[in-house]
Amino acid sequence: MKNTFGTSVAVTIFGESHGAAIGAVLDGLAAGIPVDEEFIAAQMDKRRSVGKISTARHEADKVRIVSGVFNGRTTGTPITFIIENADTHSSDYGELAYKPRPGHADLTANEKYHGYQDYRGGGHFSGRMTAGIVAAGAVAIKALEGLGITVGTHILSCGGVFDRGFGDIPEDIKALGEMDIAVLDSEKKQQMIAAIEAARDDGDSVGGRLETAVYGMPSGVGEPWFDTLESSLAHALYSIPAVKGTEFGDGFALADMRGSIANDALRFINGKVVTQTNHNGGINGGISNGMPIIFRTAIKPTPSIYKEQDTVDLRTNENTRLTIKGRHDPAIVHRARVVVDSMTALVLCDQLAMRFGTDVFIK
Amino acid sequence: MKNTFGTSVAVTIFGESHGAAIGAVLDGLAAGIPVDEEFIAAQMDKRRSVGKISTARHEADKVRIVSGVFNGRTTGTPITFIIENADTHSSDYGELAYKPRPGHADLTANEKYHGYQDYRGGGHFSGRMTAGIVAAGAVAIKALEGLGITVGTHILSCGGVFDRGFGDIPEDIKALGEMDIAVLDSEKKQQMIAAIEAARDDGDSVGGRLETAVYGMPSGVGEPWFDTLESSLAHALYSIPAVKGTEFGDGFALADMRGSIANDALRFINGKVVTQTNHNGGINGGISNGMPIIFRTAIKPTPSIYKEQDTVDLRTNENTRLTIKGRHDPAIVHRARVVVDSMTALVLCDQLAMRFGTDVFIK
Amino acid sequence: MKNTFGTSVAVTIFGESHGAAIGAVLDGLAAGIPVDEEFIAAQMDKRRSVGKISTARHEADKVRIVSGVFNGRTTGTPITFIIENADTHSSDYGELAYKPRPGHADLTANEKYHGYQDYRGGGHFSGRMTAGIVAAGAVAIKALEGLGITVGTHILSCGGVFDRGFGDIPEDIKALGEMDIAVLDSEKKQQMIAAIEAARDDGDSVGGRLETAVYGMPSGVGEPWFDTLESSLAHALYSIPAVKGTEFGDGFALADMRGSIANDALRFINGKVVTQTNHNGGINGGISNGMPIIFRTAIKPTPSIYKEQDTVDLRTNENTRLTIKGRHDPAIVHRARVVVDSMTALVLCDQLAMRFGTDVFIK
Amino acid sequence: MKNTFGTSVAVTIFGESHGAAIGAVLDGLAAGIPVDEEFIAAQMDKRRSVGKISTARHEADKVRIVSGVFNGRTTGTPITFIIENADTHSSDYGELAYKPRPGHADLTANEKYHGYQDYRGGGHFSGRMTAGIVAAGAVAIKALEGLGITVGTHILSCGGVFDRGFGDIPEDIKALGEMDIAVLDSEKKQQMIAAIEAARDDGDSVGGRLETAVYGMPSGVGEPWFDTLESSLAHALYSIPAVKGTEFGDGFALADMRGSIANDALRFINGKVVTQTNHNGGINGGISNGMPIIFRTAIKPTPSIYKEQDTVDLRTNENTRLTIKGRHDPAIVHRARVVVDSMTALVLCDQLAMRFGTDVFIK
Repeated sequence: MKNTFGTSVAVTIFGESHGAAIGAVLDGLAAGIPVDEEFIAAQMDKRRSVGKISTARHEADKVRIVSGVFNGRTTGTPITFIIENADTHSSDYGELAYKPRPGHADLTANEKYHGYQDYRGGGHFSGRMTAGIVAAGAVAIKALEGLGITVGTHILSCGGVFDRGFGDIPEDIKALGEMDIAVLDSEKKQQMIAAIEAARDDGDSVGGRLETAVYGMPSGVGEPWFDTLESSLAHALYSIPAVKGTEFGDGFALADMRGSIANDALRFINGKVVTQTNHNGGINGGISNGMPIIFRTAIKPTPSIYKEQDTVDLRTNENTRLTIKGRHDPAIVHRARVVVDSMTALVLCDQLAMRFGTDVFIK
Repeated sequence: MKNTFGTSVAVTIFGESHGAAIGAVLDGLAAGIPVDEEFIAAQMDKRRSVGKISTARHEADKVRIVSGVFNGRTTGTPITFIIENADTHSSDYGELAYKPRPGHADLTANEKYHGYQDYRGGGHFSGRMTAGIVAAGAVAIKALEGLGITVGTHILSCGGVFDRGFGDIPEDIKALGEMDIAVLDSEKKQQMIAAIEAARDDGDSVGGRLETAVYGMPSGVGEPWFDTLESSLAHALYSIPAVKGTEFGDGFALADMRGSIANDALRFINGKVVTQTNHNGGINGGISNGMPIIFRTAIKPTPSIYKEQDTVDLRTNENTRLTIKGRHDPAIVHRARVVVDSMTALVLCDQLAMRFGTDVFIK
Repeated sequence: MKNTFGTSVAVTIFGESHGAAIGAVLDGLAAGIPVDEEFIAAQMDKRRSVGKISTARHEADKVRIVSGVFNGRTTGTPITFIIENADTHSSDYGELAYKPRPGHADLTANEKYHGYQDYRGGGHFSGRMTAGIVAAGAVAIKALEGLGITVGTHILSCGGVFDRGFGDIPEDIKALGEMDIAVLDSEKKQQMIAAIEAARDDGDSVGGRLETAVYGMPSGVGEPWFDTLESSLAHALYSIPAVKGTEFGDGFALADMRGSIANDALRFINGKVVTQTNHNGGINGGISNGMPIIFRTAIKPTPSIYKEQDTVDLRTNENTRLTIKGRHDPAIVHRARVVVDSMTALVLCDQLAMRFGTDVFIK
Repeated sequence: MKNTFGTSVAVTIFGESHGAAIGAVLDGLAAGIPVDEEFIAAQMDKRRSVGKISTARHEADKVRIVSGVFNGRTTGTPITFIIENADTHSSDYGELAYKPRPGHADLTANEKYHGYQDYRGGGHFSGRMTAGIVAAGAVAIKALEGLGITVGTHILSCGGVFDRGFGDIPEDIKALGEMDIAVLDSEKKQQMIAAIEAARDDGDSVGGRLETAVYGMPSGVGEPWFDTLESSLAHALYSIPAVKGTEFGDGFALADMRGSIANDALRFINGKVVTQTNHNGGINGGISNGMPIIFRTAIKPTPSIYKEQDTVDLRTNENTRLTIKGRHDPAIVHRARVVVDSMTALVLCDQLAMRFGTDVFIK
């Protein structure tokens, strides 16, 4: 199963950037969960273009639910989200059939699909595919909230500018839910926007880091081998286009620590075992320990840039130059955060249902 | 399936640190692949203790193959590796039933298994479990070699000391195969050993980074969603105890680059499309592009240290102190590299079989 | 994964009988396979109502493909089929929310989904869901035909009338492809229609047996454990509503044979090993042997009948009587045969891709 | 995953008839379930040879548990069962490398594994492989019993002699648990033994039918698509060597009934909804309805017979004759019943854990 992820709660995605429609099927989520279409729309908006730092392509991204919801609640059977593609300028992409864009999947798609892939706008590899994930994720996020579990992601860095880290996690998550551009420190947000605009003015692009917190996750969820919480989350995160790194807790910084620091001391507080620090990001031995789950995701700079680049011509087997036409973002990190939230929620719903049964969300 | 990983080629592991035996079942690998028991033994040795920088526990780790090999070759049916546990001092571990070790899975195991887990020496969470993976991986590595694909991992950093990066990749991989402690720069190796010894002398431990290269991987392998090559590799890597970060190509450093740098320009060289740089680590859109696959793994410091630590007593629900007895390593990064090689080989065998069929290894 | 079946080639279905739309996502099929929309429409017609022996509900069942097809061929990425629900009379079904229909899934759906299921017309349990399978199956059937593999199913029995068995298998399969009601002996077909009409006149329904042949299947496909060809086919077949039995080769009749008869003697004919008889239905040890694959499927009588029946009232917890309103078939066996063909083709595409790689269909 | 079955509770089997050892890994079962080694041994005995109607091969089939059990209870991590192969006469089988036995998997194994398979005694295809399933199944049966769910299988027919059907199901299941040869009517048992002996005297073999009842299964377990209870059970059952048919409830007989009979009328009895008849075998729409689950399995006659048979010589590509040496059973139906019980218990444990969570067995 290639375009399906999850076991008890699973999501299947479909579509191409310039095809008729894209979407997702969310299967296995318990019956009886309220489906909040306004929240879905709000999440879709967060994924979409924001002002001048994003692509000029503006689609309504209206989500049509064609199955799995009855009288405003989940039925327990597959929920299907369909988003029609409207605003497509396919003529911009003709050249891409034989001139692969550096940093994109054009070349590897051609190797795998022997030239039959829909190359327009990246086809099935397009970041647009994440719209289906966000729609499905919105339902998953609400299912988690019913259990008191919240998820939030901020832009930890973009274009070399760094946000502050998480402080009061439930408060920060709440604040992020209301932001268009998810930066905890508003001054840093302005500097990041400036960095993105500078890259755009150079016909170039920037990347960044996302940092995610999950609050309220019960302990005892995850497996020692091979479906550790880190494994499951990373599997999902690395599906998001442009993600090239993940780390949990202090991640790579742990490699430079000594054990006496990295080990989070255990304490009884208010009758509950907690850790005094959280260098391990809420996960030990692949299993949640009840502390906040913390991870970071590296987002590479958008590969579509206006600058002319070296590439090859697959018709003539000769070297050539390419200037990418069409509309593209000088950064996607601000749009990717809601995708990370969505993917995280989908993974956690699956893990909770595997651990506590499919009715866990309606108990 | 919790202790099973892979689809067409899959590995199942079993055992506890202080149980009767540990091992692995390797299923789905093509029939007819020569099984080199000497190579398996050599790989097991690489995973074992090396001199004074490793634990004093010395097990022969003799691998007994009880199925799936006939006349020196794979039969195509499950290959079972059994390693008896001999040198166990379980009495060292009695206290751990109720005093969870900080940084370990003791607490989360207790939450998940309600006190029925085998707590001796970490039980099923022990790094000792990786012995089965190394045995299975040795067969997978040989299967890949038959296709001209080689894998090698070096200690990029340990205790703050950094090795040089990969240079001539096939040569470096070859050299690593013959090393006990896999550091490309021999001077840095001595400094790392010194850092490990210094930590040990302090009753403490150090972590590190591993860097892996795969050479000869054909293009067109992997999926756009959700089983990207990064997803599949990270899923496996995060199962290895102590791994808290992974990154592909330039990974987190890509977050600070501009697109014009991060995009690997495409060129025809000797009638083949190659990239001029390899910032993306041989993978675009989740699919191999024919360049070397490069990734790094963060290994946290060994959580078992001799220093006294804060913990809780689960019998009395009170805070207490713990001094871990028994034998443990001041570092495991030098032992983990062969586990990373093994896990990588298992993932790639699975991916190749999914893409090209189960007979790919004997074509 | 509940509504997803298959590994390398997988199908996901969604929808409810009286929801907005139903459909399927077909994932993993090789790129470059011609998609014949006329053939899809013809298959959909075979699944639909035929004259007076079928339900009065008449939907165009127009299939819209919204992804995965580009320039008339598969792209290798998910193919999504959407069929809008138009002709729904939901008001007929109000009573079913609390009066479960005997023989249907109404009661078990209520137990599983706690009353949140879409009960209208059987909701997600409706035979209408098979429309998505038929659409996806039509593409799979064409993929198999490209390899010289054909599939055909006839009504072996209905209402106590038995058709002749398969004779010249490739010819019979060809003939079945052109029939509306798939009975090899045209006289028996008239008798079956008479039996169905007699049941309808009694306000009752009849069941039947389907017999399927697969011709041209290469040997060596399937697994000894657990994914035997029989296991995989039966898993898919038992998903079809109303299927309560499956048997391969001579099936249950083998239970009464002696080994000397049941063993199919092996012979070299034209340089190829064949069996002189085919009591084992083309499968030994779970693996295809190159002979035609033969199996039979038991279809229970349509549970929706016009006769009044005993049931319970879930509001009052009292016994009551139910007369099912709405439109329903006195038999579905003639409609189910194309569903069996479709499911069979999907399973075989998956098995072939697992065995020979995803490009098997375009080699 | 070929030799692994199940999702939340999964079993992996390994070994060859004449290799060093066979066995199974049972993964995912909750921690804290008592492991009754005497019961395991008793189940192993039921699977083994019984007097003169079975093969002369006598192995102790001593099961060694090397992981997953601690202080007499499951730990929640993989339980590994190893059974050494002792009494092997491999020299009997040399000819089978090139003379495939009719009705066996010898030919298809050769097609799939290109001659590298372990052909001795059927290798990995041998009925001996079921010993691992019985060992794992014994633990699963006890886990079910803890929930008040019992499973029993009787020989419904053998060599043309038919047993009576189930009467008082819990009583019959209890009685079957104490029988060596599981026939409810003791007179019929003697006739079956006579039929088996008659076949043996002719150098031939007989098959039969098994009928299984599950009592106490809660309602609401199973999926509408594709993992129906019938699909999951059939998938497992068709892995058992010699199974060529399965049917649920009245199965194939339903094909000849009218709906007014086949529909099981619903009634409130003692405040619970039950069905007045059980033609559907406790499953509607793929989901348990709380009534006993009933199914039948067709077992073909043992393919190993003493009579000379037609086969081919794969060295010379010529027709030849074969007389099978070695020891083999004139019937296996009496041994297969405990395998069916075991596989059923494994499937139900998995389904229950998927539905109600992994702790369902210790609640």
